[in-house]
Amino acid sequence: MQLLLDRDAKAPLHQQIEAQIRDLIQSGDLAVGSRLPATRGLARSLGVNRSTVCSAYDALAAYGFVEARVGQGTRVISRGPLQERPASAPAPASIPSRPDWTGLLADGLDVLSDQIDAPCAPAARLDDSIDFTGIIPDERFFPVDRLRRCLDDVLRREGVSLLQYGSTRGYKPFRDIVAQRMRLSGNPVEAEEILVVNGAQQGLELFCKALLDPGDAVVVESPTYGNLLSLLRLYRAEIVSVPMTPEGLDLRQLETLLQRRRVKFLYTMPHFQNPTGVTTSQRHRRRLLEMAAEHDLAILEDGFEEELRWDGGEVLPLRALDRHGRVCYVGTFSKGLCPGFRIGWLVADTQLGSHLEQLKRATDFHSSVLLQATLAEFCRRGEYDKHLRRLRRVYRARMARTASALRAHMPAGTRWRIPAGGYCVWLELPHGVSETEIVARVARDGVHVSPGRHFFPSDPGYGCVRLSISRVNEEEIDGGLAVVGRHLHVLAQETRRADGGSNVRPYI
Amino acid sequence: MQLLLDRDAKAPLHQQIEAQIRDLIQSGDLAVGSRLPATRGLARSLGVNRSTVCSAYDALAAYGFVEARVGQGTRVISRGPLQERPASAPAPASIPSRPDWTGLLADGLDVLSDQIDAPCAPAARLDDSIDFTGIIPDERFFPVDRLRRCLDDVLRREGVSLLQYGSTRGYKPFRDIVAQRMRLSGNPVEAEEILVVNGAQQGLELFCKALLDPGDAVVVESPTYGNLLSLLRLYRAEIVSVPMTPEGLDLRQLETLLQRRRVKFLYTMPHFQNPTGVTTSQRHRRRLLEMAAEHDLAILEDGFEEELRWDGGEVLPLRALDRHGRVCYVGTFSKGLCPGFRIGWLVADTQLGSHLEQLKRATDFHSSVLLQATLAEFCRRGEYDKHLRRLRRVYRARMARTASALRAHMPAGTRWRIPAGGYCVWLELPHGVSETEIVARVARDGVHVSPGRHFFPSDPGYGCVRLSISRVNEEEIDGGLAVVGRHLHVLAQETRRADGGSNVRPYI
Repeated sequence: MQLLLDRDAKAPLHQQIEAQIRDLIQSGDLAVGSRLPATRGLARSLGVNRSTVCSAYDALAAYGFVEARVGQGTRVISRGPLQERPASAPAPASIPSRPDWTGLLADGLDVLSDQIDAPCAPAARLDDSIDFTGIIPDERFFPVDRLRRCLDDVLRREGVSLLQYGSTRGYKPFRDIVAQRMRLSGNPVEAEEILVVNGAQQGLELFCKALLDPGDAVVVESPTYGNLLSLLRLYRAEIVSVPMTPEGLDLRQLETLLQRRRVKFLYTMPHFQNPTGVTTSQRHRRRLLEMAAEHDLAILEDGFEEELRWDGGEVLPLRALDRHGRVCYVGTFSKGLCPGFRIGWLVADTQLGSHLEQLKRATDFHSSVLLQATLAEFCRRGEYDKHLRRLRRVYRARMARTASALRAHMPAGTRWRIPAGGYCVWLELPHGVSETEIVARVARDGVHVSPGRHFFPSDPGYGCVRLSISRVNEEEIDGGLAVVGRHLHVLAQETRRADGGSNVRPYI
Repeated sequence: MQLLLDRDAKAPLHQQIEAQIRDLIQSGDLAVGSRLPATRGLARSLGVNRSTVCSAYDALAAYGFVEARVGQGTRVISRGPLQERPASAPAPASIPSRPDWTGLLADGLDVLSDQIDAPCAPAARLDDSIDFTGIIPDERFFPVDRLRRCLDDVLRREGVSLLQYGSTRGYKPFRDIVAQRMRLSGNPVEAEEILVVNGAQQGLELFCKALLDPGDAVVVESPTYGNLLSLLRLYRAEIVSVPMTPEGLDLRQLETLLQRRRVKFLYTMPHFQNPTGVTTSQRHRRRLLEMAAEHDLAILEDGFEEELRWDGGEVLPLRALDRHGRVCYVGTFSKGLCPGFRIGWLVADTQLGSHLEQLKRATDFHSSVLLQATLAEFCRRGEYDKHLRRLRRVYRARMARTASALRAHMPAGTRWRIPAGGYCVWLELPHGVSETEIVARVARDGVHVSPGRHFFPSDPGYGCVRLSISRVNEEEIDGGLAVVGRHLHVLAQETRRADGGSNVRPYI
């Protein structure tokens, strides 16, 4: 073994020895199994202290290249990283097969997997199919270049601080802008009440995590947002449903329920409810708040599409009417701008907010500062409002086309309402028609709609589908709904023949 | 009330009526409390169907501007959004004071708040203080312009898809790069085994959420990462600690423990452990894996600083030596590049991975696609390796300066080890010296260090502090440690005088 030491080099002698022996091992010149020279002899031949050689050998042992055994000296045992363990080395005898990870899961978690159906990774538009399923913004309108310029500018201006750890609450100028926007829509919010999260979904998750113990009752509208149902199951809450009506959730049933039992909170989407599209009136909202006060009910208001009003006047969010910190509000940039940023926010009472902030910190410290700064810049330049105005033009027309296509193509007994905003249209099928059947039949013709059961905590007892017009243009709306209508006509006829029933039954 | 209808306009007549009345209300021309004309009369005077007027009134009522009461007609009740509720309207009598959110919290959550101490929002460098506390990368080296160019290029190239919803697993080209990098460091990882998360912290959180039921036992090194302790408390796990030694966690104690009881998993940082800086040898790692196999123990390996080796050869991660999917690995770009992106990853066995993916989806759908694409581009161009080489130069020098400053300034009885990488140096104080006292005294002189107790599940029984050299330059290291040494000399003398004790006691 030939080693050369450079006494003028910066690297200490023991490191030079270590490095050169490592090279010999890694190159194969010192084979696995071969013995290193005794430390005393090598030290003498190199003219160094014996402890210098010892510390080189120690380092090699520490990194697993060699092993010292009493009475056998130091042997090469591995060529180290980038090498497989030598085939000749026997695997330890006692290692059993892979661990049973599913067996290790927290209680009930193994059943969760099938129940989460998030709007992720939309299919690329590779074929002619028409997709009415996800509430996924139409990427044809993404203001890519304007966002790119904002990103570039904020990085040039304050890049260093945007790449560093940031505040858990969120980047202050971003919270200022969000609060200001909310105030302009009648919601008296201060930046201090805002907690920035990774899209509305994380807001919902943090809220559930903060409040739910297994068995807690949570009231939801029926039908409601499917991923919220998944979250409630994840936290093993008891899901208590109150039916939606065209005026909003049924307040009389809610009242009866609240008189009977304690619930942890109510989850509601007063604007353009998912999936029914219903917007509740200001009066309904006031009554709901009075009822909540009377029964000390906490409310989680999901304003995910609040800014997507295509028609008619504004309605104040529940949060704006609430003077007692009873409503926690969740908002997002995913539906009005782009989901890929994963930026949303919670507005919470100070007391609750500080708990949510601690949970956010424990979960992932904070959301990307760079993306928050970019959105702040985008809003500050008026680009977001401009973008919303453009969406308003596009979707007002799409919604009108949806209305006329439904009138033109649906058979008698089909019911729907055209919402004042958002992306969802709820279709109730003629009496007795199976939603599973219609979903399957239209899919064969390249048209995709969401079966209603995804949105119910339990069996809805009637057939319905949700149409999302977020990612279909007017032509696709007309063509797609013609296909749905054609199959519905056939199915309704088959059903009438089969059971002779009538087509009349209560609307949502 | 004067309304003008345009029969050639696109807007339907009922909307024209609604809009004009809304304007009158919002401008104050129609005062709150005033009565709208009867529908029949207004319809006649405008020459429209009465139902047209009714639907305009309905819409105004829905948006809370007016209210219809039997026998009293329709009155204006609010000027709508952007307006406070009129002062004259009495608040509902039954609304109690703000809800008791803390009372609503999930079990045990109210005690969490004080226990989370994340490296968020580092103080700006406004004064002359020298900060050895957080493991916060030095922003003086952030490659802002190179990252900016990557962001710009990926947005130009594939902006639309980067702003859309993405895959929960993570952006495929990014996972490819991460897997490739891990393979190059000897870790046989495939892109399919990777789950992208918001920094290592979210990886730890998802792992805990997947596996922990209240009361489950988790083994940690003592001392260990403080935020992991917070997470374990959040999930109400029983924290079982095994002492660190200069060779890694004490395997004999671990063996005894595992013979005695079941634990859910072991959390370990084999590279540059936080806070001790200890890197375990390959042999120690193999023994740990054999022991884990024998007792069917799951392992969570935190490789947060794996790429930050300043000196010596590579050591294979546990995950690379594990052939049975027993080790779940978490990695991050926060320590080697920049924390602001909030991008890390988990490597998990297929079975566990699919559960973690479902949890990630339920939590926040996915991490920002844009930021993943930017990091992939940054790595692909070789920029990340270049950056790491630069850090290696800088921190090798800083570590050397730390070593010489400690030798120069610390009193007898102080003990430390200089790690081969990472940012942490663990300082054991002379016998009997109070860590609280030294932390407070040096802080008064503008030098900040972390008290050792932050890293222990329970009282360590001896005084120690963690020094992080991540954000201090060589001059600051020397100056800061001189201050620490000066105060330690005084404190050690005071302590010796007080109890006449010796300075000898076991190392970590």
